[in-house]
Amino acid sequence: VVKAGTPLEECQKAAADHGLFLALDLGSRGSCQIGGNLSTNAGGIRVIRYGMAREQVLGLEVVLADGTIISSMNRMLKNNAGYDLKHLFIGSEGTLGIITRAVLRLHPPPGEITTMLVAVSSYDQVVTLLRRAQSELGGVVAFEAMWRDYFAFNADALKLTFFDAAHAFCVIIESTGPREAIEEFLAACLQETLIDDALIAASHAQAREMWSVREGHPIEVLPNLLNFDVSLPIGMIGDYAKACTAALKARWPQAHVSFYGHVGDSNVHICVSTLYAPGEDMHSVDDIVYGVLGHYHGSISAEHGIGTLKRPYLHLSRSPQELALMLSLKQSLDPKGILNPGKVI
Amino acid sequence: VVKAGTPLEECQKAAADHGLFLALDLGSRGSCQIGGNLSTNAGGIRVIRYGMAREQVLGLEVVLADGTIISSMNRMLKNNAGYDLKHLFIGSEGTLGIITRAVLRLHPPPGEITTMLVAVSSYDQVVTLLRRAQSELGGVVAFEAMWRDYFAFNADALKLTFFDAAHAFCVIIESTGPREAIEEFLAACLQETLIDDALIAASHAQAREMWSVREGHPIEVLPNLLNFDVSLPIGMIGDYAKACTAALKARWPQAHVSFYGHVGDSNVHICVSTLYAPGEDMHSVDDIVYGVLGHYHGSISAEHGIGTLKRPYLHLSRSPQELALMLSLKQSLDPKGILNPGKVI
Repeated sequence: VVKAGTPLEECQKAAADHGLFLALDLGSRGSCQIGGNLSTNAGGIRVIRYGMAREQVLGLEVVLADGTIISSMNRMLKNNAGYDLKHLFIGSEGTLGIITRAVLRLHPPPGEITTMLVAVSSYDQVVTLLRRAQSELGGVVAFEAMWRDYFAFNADALKLTFFDAAHAFCVIIESTGPREAIEEFLAACLQETLIDDALIAASHAQAREMWSVREGHPIEVLPNLLNFDVSLPIGMIGDYAKACTAALKARWPQAHVSFYGHVGDSNVHICVSTLYAPGEDMHSVDDIVYGVLGHYHGSISAEHGIGTLKRPYLHLSRSPQELALMLSLKQSLDPKGILNPGKVI
Repeated sequence: VVKAGTPLEECQKAAADHGLFLALDLGSRGSCQIGGNLSTNAGGIRVIRYGMAREQVLGLEVVLADGTIISSMNRMLKNNAGYDLKHLFIGSEGTLGIITRAVLRLHPPPGEITTMLVAVSSYDQVVTLLRRAQSELGGVVAFEAMWRDYFAFNADALKLTFFDAAHAFCVIIESTGPREAIEEFLAACLQETLIDDALIAASHAQAREMWSVREGHPIEVLPNLLNFDVSLPIGMIGDYAKACTAALKARWPQAHVSFYGHVGDSNVHICVSTLYAPGEDMHSVDDIVYGVLGHYHGSISAEHGIGTLKRPYLHLSRSPQELALMLSLKQSLDPKGILNPGKVI
């Protein structure tokens, strides 16, 4: 049981102190609060194995617009006694009720985790590698793909070198299970030329170096940097990335456009940095990124929610009937529109 | 993508034909339909690893009370673009909308599964065994505990003998991972006297025999048999079973009372067979089973929903504020009360 204002990292530590594991983890663990994680249904790096924030919740306490306190502090994994009300409030960004406390689901610790960095030549091979790793390794708990430009920019800025050559994709895989089985798996993948190169982190410090490239703080210094968080069926992400890059470079040939993402859960992030011409602004980038996405029936928000900035684009991902149902829920639960006004819908 | 009327087993086979795995599985796989599985948020034997029916759904098509078709046929694992509407309809037993089609989430096949039967002396040891197995085995995909009376009744009727002696608990564990690691794990548990005996199924046929005891068709012949499906925090299930048995036997000393359940997901099932005195009926059993459960803050429905029979007891598991919110959702989505009338609330 945690209060909504507790930082995520504090929740993780409290679980670890009891020999248990809170499966929600994201780069901002030190500053984000669990209440925000739940109201936005946060994702992060463990989704591929444990699901999103929604799946880590057993019970909730929520304050409704009329002041009613709904205490659904369920502690059971299974409870089909009536409607499962918590899902109304998880991911609705505070527009239907305010989450004040939660009962979190904890897991047994996953055991020793091995971190590896794998170089791959094509997006199709990234997907094949994902499927193979999920079938053949003990338990894949992270799978983070970085497209060449993203990896190179951050690794160069951090003065880190992992491989002799540049590769189209670098993937961080984390898995439980015996070390020998992981080595055999990578050797077999090399043998079959499914992968080009691989490196198993020899120490916690080296694993942290790999993750520092993925967390990508260097890229944040780029001018006018925009970060996108989209999702589309896993098999289409490679083509989308090519089409999106082409469309952005056609308009701004000097733009930095790079991709990274969890892939295994259909989520990819895009970094775009460009200098706008007079009269242009960030919305001209939005229009291209979301416009290309519409052709692939993707979602404009995988894990970061809608908020204010994406509200004008929500109709690209949801049908008029869905939007009408969302509005009717909003009106039923918050008829005066006092909860987080102007957000989502 | 499946239509609501497709039998579950057919969905499983279609996934397998594509080299994939549908993680929803329950005894009635041959007769139940996926639409019913979703509208009741079915559980089954894989919940401990893969979650309930809700977690196997990416998208839904639903018909609302006013005839609107909501097509939320999302194919992405992550999609935080506005409210996640599917959760309104999953588990609400057709009272808020009728599920007509679904996009199901498939997993890579779990690989070779080893089935074992383990004998244990106390409920606390069952819980310790669960935690140890989850930490130390490759991937526990089923954990089904049977209390002595349940196991003995079914094994005797089926003329199956697994161990030399009767044990307080028999547990079916299914796990992926190398056979040697499983043997080592069981040997260590025996050495530490955490378990009393263990048997690894030598063939698919022997695994089916173990499961036939768990599926428990013989017990269905008992007169006036009532089956309950409750959930309570895992650590309390042992005490609840003792208290519930004592309360039922105090009223009907000849009653058959036995327990079995998934345990790892907080769910236990109860079989009660007794001859009523004149003027008594099944509600006298309900009153005791749910009455004792109330003391443990358990839920009157873990995976079988509420329907008609449990409606009078729903207030035992949900607060007046929760019931009011459910009613307001029902009124908002089905103002004329035409969807599955008389069910749930």
